[in-house]
Amino acid sequence: MERLFYPRRLVVVGASRNPRKVGSLILKNILESNYEGELTAVNPHEDSIMGVPTVHDVSVIKAPIDVAIIAIPAQAVPEVLEQLGERRCKYAVVISSGYGETDKKGEEREEELVKIANRYNITLVGPNCLGVINASSAAHAYNGSFALSSHIKGSVSLISQSGALISSALDYGAQAGFGFNKVISIGNQADLDVLDGISYLAEDDSTDAIAVYVEGLKHAEELMKTLLEIEKPVILLKPGSTNAAKEAISSHTGSLAGEERVIRELFEEVNAIQVDSLEEMLSTMHLFSMHQNVSKRDVGVVTNAGGVGVIAVDTLSRAGLSLASLQKKTQEALKDSLPDAAAVSNPVDVLGDAGHEEYHAAVQAVLEEGEVGSVVVVVTPQIMTPIKKIAEALRRLAKQYPHKPLVPIFVGGDGVQPAFDLLQGKLPVARTPNVGIEALARLYHYSENPPNKKLWSRPTRYVKKQSLERVGELISEQRTAGATALDFDTISVIGEEFDIPFPKFDYVEAEEQLGEIWKSYQKPVAMKAVAPDVLHRSDEGKVETNLLKLPDAKAFYRREQDQTVIMQQQIMDGVEMFAGVKTDRQFGKVLVVGLGGIYAEIIDDTAVGILPITKPRIWRLLKQTKSYQVLKGARGTVYDTQFLVDTIYNIHLFAISFEEVKEIDVNPLIVQETGGYVVDMKVLLKE
Amino acid sequence: MERLFYPRRLVVVGASRNPRKVGSLILKNILESNYEGELTAVNPHEDSIMGVPTVHDVSVIKAPIDVAIIAIPAQAVPEVLEQLGERRCKYAVVISSGYGETDKKGEEREEELVKIANRYNITLVGPNCLGVINASSAAHAYNGSFALSSHIKGSVSLISQSGALISSALDYGAQAGFGFNKVISIGNQADLDVLDGISYLAEDDSTDAIAVYVEGLKHAEELMKTLLEIEKPVILLKPGSTNAAKEAISSHTGSLAGEERVIRELFEEVNAIQVDSLEEMLSTMHLFSMHQNVSKRDVGVVTNAGGVGVIAVDTLSRAGLSLASLQKKTQEALKDSLPDAAAVSNPVDVLGDAGHEEYHAAVQAVLEEGEVGSVVVVVTPQIMTPIKKIAEALRRLAKQYPHKPLVPIFVGGDGVQPAFDLLQGKLPVARTPNVGIEALARLYHYSENPPNKKLWSRPTRYVKKQSLERVGELISEQRTAGATALDFDTISVIGEEFDIPFPKFDYVEAEEQLGEIWKSYQKPVAMKAVAPDVLHRSDEGKVETNLLKLPDAKAFYRREQDQTVIMQQQIMDGVEMFAGVKTDRQFGKVLVVGLGGIYAEIIDDTAVGILPITKPRIWRLLKQTKSYQVLKGARGTVYDTQFLVDTIYNIHLFAISFEEVKEIDVNPLIVQETGGYVVDMKVLLKE
Repeated sequence: MERLFYPRRLVVVGASRNPRKVGSLILKNILESNYEGELTAVNPHEDSIMGVPTVHDVSVIKAPIDVAIIAIPAQAVPEVLEQLGERRCKYAVVISSGYGETDKKGEEREEELVKIANRYNITLVGPNCLGVINASSAAHAYNGSFALSSHIKGSVSLISQSGALISSALDYGAQAGFGFNKVISIGNQADLDVLDGISYLAEDDSTDAIAVYVEGLKHAEELMKTLLEIEKPVILLKPGSTNAAKEAISSHTGSLAGEERVIRELFEEVNAIQVDSLEEMLSTMHLFSMHQNVSKRDVGVVTNAGGVGVIAVDTLSRAGLSLASLQKKTQEALKDSLPDAAAVSNPVDVLGDAGHEEYHAAVQAVLEEGEVGSVVVVVTPQIMTPIKKIAEALRRLAKQYPHKPLVPIFVGGDGVQPAFDLLQGKLPVARTPNVGIEALARLYHYSENPPNKKLWSRPTRYVKKQSLERVGELISEQRTAGATALDFDTISVIGEEFDIPFPKFDYVEAEEQLGEIWKSYQKPVAMKAVAPDVLHRSDEGKVETNLLKLPDAKAFYRREQDQTVIMQQQIMDGVEMFAGVKTDRQFGKVLVVGLGGIYAEIIDDTAVGILPITKPRIWRLLKQTKSYQVLKGARGTVYDTQFLVDTIYNIHLFAISFEEVKEIDVNPLIVQETGGYVVDMKVLLKE
Repeated sequence: MERLFYPRRLVVVGASRNPRKVGSLILKNILESNYEGELTAVNPHEDSIMGVPTVHDVSVIKAPIDVAIIAIPAQAVPEVLEQLGERRCKYAVVISSGYGETDKKGEEREEELVKIANRYNITLVGPNCLGVINASSAAHAYNGSFALSSHIKGSVSLISQSGALISSALDYGAQAGFGFNKVISIGNQADLDVLDGISYLAEDDSTDAIAVYVEGLKHAEELMKTLLEIEKPVILLKPGSTNAAKEAISSHTGSLAGEERVIRELFEEVNAIQVDSLEEMLSTMHLFSMHQNVSKRDVGVVTNAGGVGVIAVDTLSRAGLSLASLQKKTQEALKDSLPDAAAVSNPVDVLGDAGHEEYHAAVQAVLEEGEVGSVVVVVTPQIMTPIKKIAEALRRLAKQYPHKPLVPIFVGGDGVQPAFDLLQGKLPVARTPNVGIEALARLYHYSENPPNKKLWSRPTRYVKKQSLERVGELISEQRTAGATALDFDTISVIGEEFDIPFPKFDYVEAEEQLGEIWKSYQKPVAMKAVAPDVLHRSDEGKVETNLLKLPDAKAFYRREQDQTVIMQQQIMDGVEMFAGVKTDRQFGKVLVVGLGGIYAEIIDDTAVGILPITKPRIWRLLKQTKSYQVLKGARGTVYDTQFLVDTIYNIHLFAISFEEVKEIDVNPLIVQETGGYVVDMKVLLKE
């Protein structure tokens, strides 16, 4: 994609003199960006527009063309694309709309474009996009978009499915004090998509961080793998879809792992920096364009306002950062340079009337402190506060200590604007504590959690051939019979073959057998009617537990004897966990683990991972749940987590061995001090 | 406090010609605010400052003085205050610092001020404050502070313990487009405090909403009662204190209801609008200065950018609002006025090139829709977007539909600034979706949850006299013996007298008794060593459950026979809940209810209420927990919630009947389909 961002020969098809036309706006932006390559405009009626040589027809332009930007009505695009193909055009940026974003006809038009592009080996950007921007000062860099051109230059690059968001982000960034390097509006992603953009920017030396706005994910699994390999921060804003949320959810696992949730947790696994709002995205880009690493969780805070200092401390501890404790040496240095009434422990209060000397001395002392990983500086505009001079002092200090992020928070509006003007593109300056500090927390989280490629190695998947055959046959039989859920028979065989331990049980086929069976059990026992269509048994009254007397067992049998009835050893001790497998539309089979029992669906204490999975990744997922604290001994008893991991691993082996399996729902999976039991397991089949 | 905000005679003590002196800044602000009353400056060396008549001494000023603003060194204040007292001064605003905020000596100085003020019946504002502002245009209104004077006029009033925050908020508000009515910097609250401020502003006709920044709460209970009576919104920012969080917490109940948490939930009970960051506070003030009510949860969204529209929808559903569905009539109206490619269902997409006519037509159609309670309008600055004209259209529509909040979100920086300039003080305009929408969600939450005064009526507290005497005697005995926790004997008597049902139990005093006792129990049984010092029994291995065989019971007894050992009926069915009472430093005794069992401390699913409490309020608390869904039948079985409420009510009656009780910890409180049991109850005494 080098030539997309640095074209030697650039063509604007649909250039115009009319300043309201998109083709005119784009040409103007290109000229203002001081593009140094060969620029040609195309317009059937002009010979020169804004001083740019203009031809009436693409076919007269010298080949090869690196980039053609097309801003003409959709119906005219195919012919132009053919002509561009003949001129060995490499990239066609189709600004025009009226494609897949509209209706069936538009979709067909889009397919036609892709066909032509493929035929001529043209890479298509868009259609329905805002264009491409390279804000770097290199030769051949250009602004080939119709975004507001008020933006400034920076080191973060943006890939966006929404063109309008680009306009807003550039404009917002310029006021907030940060700029962009490269911007791609990918539009309908007919050809070039998010993944292509990320892959290119990952290798682009002038891009320090990549920001991505995307609504729908194509090639989700491939994207995950790409992210795992990337060694620079990727900031991701992916809004949820209300339609998705409305979808009826068919089983327990479903409700525990909605699609959005799966995506969120999977991106978390590869350390993508996920943001929830435009504002978070912008402030995170701002900070990451200047810093990609912070070494310590501990933050130093310097403020001229006790109250706002307290708010900052509150914000940082809520965001998962901590307040550094300053060593005696540092406190002495602060005492020497600040008035007596100043507070020299963290947060350092330089007092309301502090000038730039006090700020310089205090911030430098805190930067010198070894315990401090980053410094937040709060400045409120008292009438006597020298905003500009303080900003200058901070800029000098940031140069002097380039490895400790320095986050200035000038709280106010026009009164603090001079600081924003001065620090633009230099320091990640914010207007309120939460904006700056939450971005800092994301930086810390990113620095601390490099994706562990080893965790992601393929699991050694050893399943005996005869196990696969035996279970496979049973599943086939069930499917042939039209079942959508496996029966108890099959599930108990799965337990044997995949080492998933069920409690002792017996089929009860006649009331007379009950007495004999009863004797062989420790009390209390459980009885179940196990017809496969009864999905959520305890909801339906098809399970009875705590049976201590034979007549009660008989009564249950009599009531349910038209079903398959079993007696099962009731498991009295242990922690109830949940394990499930769900088929996600984008990621295929995913694992859900966490709190089980009757609270499983009410209190969502689960973690989600993509399959196949290794045991170390199962550990990692479990550690994300609160229930894990109970397992490891928060209440005195330490439970057999190794058993839990092994059993979940085995359930997953079963899940990935059979394509036909759609969902698995294991609840409760009881973990005891030694070993444990799968008390109930349901398996749904694909239809 | 009318005279504090509308003084007829106003004096500035410490006025100065030196523009760096606070006394000079304040005088300048007063002059710029066009104060119409009688203004006198006091300075020993001047006869006129900035054209204001200046006297050398307070004693020559005509009495009575309504307000004196004092900006002189702390040591000179007492004498001046005495003189002011002689001139029958009503309010003294002490700007000077060097009081309680510094050291012991400063505290003494502060006490001295209060004494003098009390003697002369002067109300003291501060010391260590920024002053007082009345931005209304009424006669006698004035800006008596040294805040930046760039602020604009509005209808929200601010009470702040931090002076610097006021400077920042005023400056920020002016840029964001909203203003203030009255502002009080309460400083050290030596005399006039937050509660006084709120009480006055509650009755002030020109104040539509009250914003409060406060760090420490005095008179917390009184404040709660005041808030319960107030009929206008109170926005509260109270940062948590890191020191408080560090405090060692002594028992389970403690950890479940940290001080910050208690405060948060109690304010929630009286419908205070709690915000967590300065930014939230400012955006909430912005919206509430224009609207104090929204009738429906359903929001209409109009956007010129699909992507940002999706972000807005995401934000609003995450914030607890919902997307309105537009009726056919509305969609037809939209179709008539928008291009074919526009989306006419909610969110309405007017397309990237929309002008002000399209916006006007679309927003009007959505405002007309009966299902819609408020409208969010997203505008991104494409080059062709007429920002100012769109803003004008929205302003006209807001006038036409005053009862439906219209929240314009102009996403960008300088490119959208014209909208902010134009809509300043008129519409709650925001720069990113989350800022505007989260404030809207707070407005909805506020509108939907008026505090219910009936819920707060005193409970009818009927406890039999002999119950009080019997339990009281036992508690006295225990305290005399030096106990800090009640023994099992006493607790079982409490159960009898207060109708708190424990499971059947027997003391085991010798191994030989065990066989006889064993026979009278259903299996399994539990055995416990109940020495009162063993606080968290199951953590310490002093409880054994699921005992099915007599020899196991004997083994337990032999191991623990130097303690008091009991056999207890094990309760097999039901939901495990938690109930506790804690003594909060600010609110006295508070109740904690929620999920019980081994997960109680790991998964915090609890609600907190101040005592005494009525049964309807207990219901309300329970409904805040997720566990309540299980109780009411989420898993098929419906549990006896009435039993739960009655039992919690009885526990609370015991708690409030005895001053000596510090904490109660009931876990588990098992709720069955009919009735239930308190399986374990611990009571700690005050020392």
